[in-house]
Amino acid sequence: MNVVDSTGSPFARLRPVPTEAVTLTDAFWEPRREINRRVTLPTQFRHIEDTSRLDNFRRASGKKTGIDFVGIYFNDSDVYKWLEGAVVEGREDPALQPMIETAIVEIQDAQQADGYLNTYFMFEREKDRWTNLRDMHEMYCAGHFIQSAVAHYRSGGDDRLLNVARRLADHMDAKYGPEGEPGACGHEEAELALVELYRATGETRYLALAKRMIDARGQEPSAVLQGRGGDRRYHQDHVPYRQLSEVTGHAVRMMYLAAGAADVYLETGEQALWDAMMRQWDNMTERRSYVSGGLGARYEGEAFGKDYELPNDRAYSETCAAIGSVMWNWRLLLATGDARYSDLIEHTLFNAVLPGLSLDGQHYFYQNPLENDGAHRRQPWFGCACCPPNVARLLAQLTGYFYSVDDAGDIFVHLYARGSAQIALPDGRTIPMTVTTEYPFDGEVEITVGADGDFGVCLRVPEWAGGARLSVNGEDADATPGTYARLRRDWKTGDVIRLELPFEPRFLRSHPYVSENTARVAVFVGPLLYCAEKTDNGEIPNLQDAYVADPADFEKTTVWDLPGVVALRGSTLIQSPVTMRLYGSRFFEPSHAMRPLTLVPYYAWANRDPGQMIVWLREQE
Amino acid sequence: MNVVDSTGSPFARLRPVPTEAVTLTDAFWEPRREINRRVTLPTQFRHIEDTSRLDNFRRASGKKTGIDFVGIYFNDSDVYKWLEGAVVEGREDPALQPMIETAIVEIQDAQQADGYLNTYFMFEREKDRWTNLRDMHEMYCAGHFIQSAVAHYRSGGDDRLLNVARRLADHMDAKYGPEGEPGACGHEEAELALVELYRATGETRYLALAKRMIDARGQEPSAVLQGRGGDRRYHQDHVPYRQLSEVTGHAVRMMYLAAGAADVYLETGEQALWDAMMRQWDNMTERRSYVSGGLGARYEGEAFGKDYELPNDRAYSETCAAIGSVMWNWRLLLATGDARYSDLIEHTLFNAVLPGLSLDGQHYFYQNPLENDGAHRRQPWFGCACCPPNVARLLAQLTGYFYSVDDAGDIFVHLYARGSAQIALPDGRTIPMTVTTEYPFDGEVEITVGADGDFGVCLRVPEWAGGARLSVNGEDADATPGTYARLRRDWKTGDVIRLELPFEPRFLRSHPYVSENTARVAVFVGPLLYCAEKTDNGEIPNLQDAYVADPADFEKTTVWDLPGVVALRGSTLIQSPVTMRLYGSRFFEPSHAMRPLTLVPYYAWANRDPGQMIVWLREQE
Repeated sequence: MNVVDSTGSPFARLRPVPTEAVTLTDAFWEPRREINRRVTLPTQFRHIEDTSRLDNFRRASGKKTGIDFVGIYFNDSDVYKWLEGAVVEGREDPALQPMIETAIVEIQDAQQADGYLNTYFMFEREKDRWTNLRDMHEMYCAGHFIQSAVAHYRSGGDDRLLNVARRLADHMDAKYGPEGEPGACGHEEAELALVELYRATGETRYLALAKRMIDARGQEPSAVLQGRGGDRRYHQDHVPYRQLSEVTGHAVRMMYLAAGAADVYLETGEQALWDAMMRQWDNMTERRSYVSGGLGARYEGEAFGKDYELPNDRAYSETCAAIGSVMWNWRLLLATGDARYSDLIEHTLFNAVLPGLSLDGQHYFYQNPLENDGAHRRQPWFGCACCPPNVARLLAQLTGYFYSVDDAGDIFVHLYARGSAQIALPDGRTIPMTVTTEYPFDGEVEITVGADGDFGVCLRVPEWAGGARLSVNGEDADATPGTYARLRRDWKTGDVIRLELPFEPRFLRSHPYVSENTARVAVFVGPLLYCAEKTDNGEIPNLQDAYVADPADFEKTTVWDLPGVVALRGSTLIQSPVTMRLYGSRFFEPSHAMRPLTLVPYYAWANRDPGQMIVWLREQE
Repeated sequence: MNVVDSTGSPFARLRPVPTEAVTLTDAFWEPRREINRRVTLPTQFRHIEDTSRLDNFRRASGKKTGIDFVGIYFNDSDVYKWLEGAVVEGREDPALQPMIETAIVEIQDAQQADGYLNTYFMFEREKDRWTNLRDMHEMYCAGHFIQSAVAHYRSGGDDRLLNVARRLADHMDAKYGPEGEPGACGHEEAELALVELYRATGETRYLALAKRMIDARGQEPSAVLQGRGGDRRYHQDHVPYRQLSEVTGHAVRMMYLAAGAADVYLETGEQALWDAMMRQWDNMTERRSYVSGGLGARYEGEAFGKDYELPNDRAYSETCAAIGSVMWNWRLLLATGDARYSDLIEHTLFNAVLPGLSLDGQHYFYQNPLENDGAHRRQPWFGCACCPPNVARLLAQLTGYFYSVDDAGDIFVHLYARGSAQIALPDGRTIPMTVTTEYPFDGEVEITVGADGDFGVCLRVPEWAGGARLSVNGEDADATPGTYARLRRDWKTGDVIRLELPFEPRFLRSHPYVSENTARVAVFVGPLLYCAEKTDNGEIPNLQDAYVADPADFEKTTVWDLPGVVALRGSTLIQSPVTMRLYGSRFFEPSHAMRPLTLVPYYAWANRDPGQMIVWLREQE
């Protein structure tokens, strides 16, 4: 599953606090999770049935005859991603159970006697199995299935799917393991899944196979292209992974590969893997990320661009790539306990993953532009429907990202939301904690410790939170931004930790090499990126003409049609070009036209009337 | 041919002064034309043979057996474009004659009994002829052949190719004319070619067929997609042409379509066609053109982007699209005599067509970025080799773009270069003219009239030439920028016209909606766009850190490794970012580091050591 089980991982610093140990009662996440349970997952199941994605399994098992495979050859993976989310949520929502059971049975029955499982390569296409690793996503589909099987097993399900997963992994191991040929999928995903299967089963062959797949990239001859042509960079196959110093090619694949490498690292501690990941992480965060945390600058190849190539309107920023970033950074966090990874996880969740899903839970963005004329709208489903179930499975497992523990008895608090948790320390103690906050709309967080004893509580102080204040029972403690503030003491039940994060609006600017953002600012409050939408700003004919001067000009407000959302109200100088010429010497007359300007969180955009949206506002000189 | 024959076109204001009437003796164009004749065309012929492009014809005619069609299905068109250039140049260079004769014979022999001519759809693929207009470029290839046949005929060749063209056009007319089905090619080109064939033969069916193809676009059901899926906008098929108000989709196709529409207009005078072209022209020039005149913002679809979407490093700006723009604007100029079209032709020739060809005449750009890290280099040939022979045929016909005449006895001088011309007026008189100038590196142009008589001389005064001065035999005359300055008088042999165009360096800025160019300037001298290349500026680690203040800081100079080219030398303030962070609040410390900055004409970039190149320089506040 997405939230890995690092309990036995020798090179993990942090151990899991599982999804079911955390309860949210907040007004931000929990309503969205309820929508995920009640609306998103059920409607996705309907789409899956309506688009014959399950019929493809019924065809493979012989239950349905006289029909062709329907859809794209990797459509099985959508069923698996949906299932991974559903089995986690299913614990709390019996209404999902019949759907889950249907999916389990159909998948189980579609597995072949030799362990093979892919509904596209059946019958007339059976002969083509494993003949085109570059394009056909067989390992990718297998990986998503394995993730769902592990999630089902860990969520208190039986071992039916886990056994299917073992047989499938054994089949792949026979073909591509030490006794077989070198091979790696054009679309990475199986690597991280196999490590999880290793964790769930203890079978070291699966870990070895995952490592072997990573090792296979960038070799001569290519184990991905297998004699075919193609863009090796697109497939992260132009150099061996350990020599890769940038994030490149197809963004989702890059993230899944890096997550798989991190999983292998957690088990092996191989320094060369770690060094490569660090170079890639620096390249990504210093040169190839949107201010939203979104990844992928190019439509062509759904790919990372060059350094500083970050167009706003033409941002690709695929929702799945942001999810992949969360997955990778989660594994890096488990390895280190370094707050820079959890900072990025939070940032990406709010500003790059959540925009992929409508507030009603039934519409999705594939691409997430940072500027738009209003034509880009969320869709109920896609032919290539990778993003919708990817968001659903992440939300289903969200509570798994909130806490970790370490072997020294420290509790790490990564994310903040009203709720409670029962945190099991490795030594067997369970510590109840209660959190009171309006985060992410307010920076005051109060945590009440629910047990006596000596343990640590490590609170993430976000890097942006200059001026953060921390206290225990009213006594100040150190809170350095960009670190975990560690409070280790002999706790008494009822002790109150209070963290105050500054929530003044602030402007961020881009590195000057990002040409599109020259003389522009992005507005943040706390962890949330804001944007201007036309629907709130009817008095401004073109939001490109709006110049803002000072974050202190903005104050919190509400807008009637986004209930529960904190908006910002400020003012802006309007400077409209006075000529239609594309190139010339002068475009402006002096202007003194001031207008009110309303901003809303970027994650909430495109949920109302279509219209212009802009993240990067022009800055008044 | 590219330079159309508007002699009999009822809605043309201007009549041709043919290529052979104009002689250039200048140091800019004529050496390039000689390279075109002696190097480019012969080496291209060798590529054509080496890549089996002519063998495909020999296979079709049965002269070569046991071989398959080689290459891309539209490779015939490269032979035709090469031939169009070669037959014009062949007049002056007998060395080209054997190559031309080879091509003519192979083409002629490959034509089928029913007039069909396309070497891809032979034998096993014969059954697939005309079954996929969207993708297979059959009309496109036919169009390029017809252009070459007309060029051959007009260049004093025999009528062999013209007869092949007639049979081919008759074949298409039977299939897609009034007696046939509606149909239009996914890649426009046949339209303009058929109008030219009409002009060369007088056969009105060809004009009617061209119009019918334009009419067929944007209809229901689609005559382009023919029941297939696909992006109608990409093919300019989403609305009828007369309703199209923007330049959109594949840029080359858009330009060829517009040129075809202009050709139909020149013959029919249909107002709705004209109105549509004017809307498209405004959209193109006001919102969708690079400062180079290059067209096409997107790699995906080789397409126009949205309004103001003009990335520099990721510019597509295909050389062929610029050539298409020259073709379209030439036809608009013939219709109107309006200097805005000839301004754009000159601008595009220097700054968007010429960069497509190396100074050695053997290497080509397909894409023309306005900013690059040095990795983008011209190639000797391409699998899809549309651009190389397109440049060659344009250079071969260049002298045809220099002059026109009108029925009132006015001579229009569109372009300036040292040389002479024998200009035939419609009334039968021939006027010799001699031009002395160092244009485009200097703005002084002297024209000596070589005959007595009453006629007009209309000199293009470029729109950028504020402060231009004009005189006849020392007497001042009016010279309004952006118009043709008309001198009508009773000329005496030896009368001297003197035009002085200001050649001080000047800065152009972008409309503020072009986000990438915020706070940047492009440097021009006369018609030439300049850029900074790393090879001249070794002292500046990153040209993105160079800020320029004033065009008057630049003066003309030379660089040793671009002989004959006027460079610029100025100074620049260096401001380097002090942090690697991608987003933050501050990136600069005050700087006073001044460095010399050398600029060279953009057309000449990437002819020396690879390195960073930048057109849009940062402007110091």
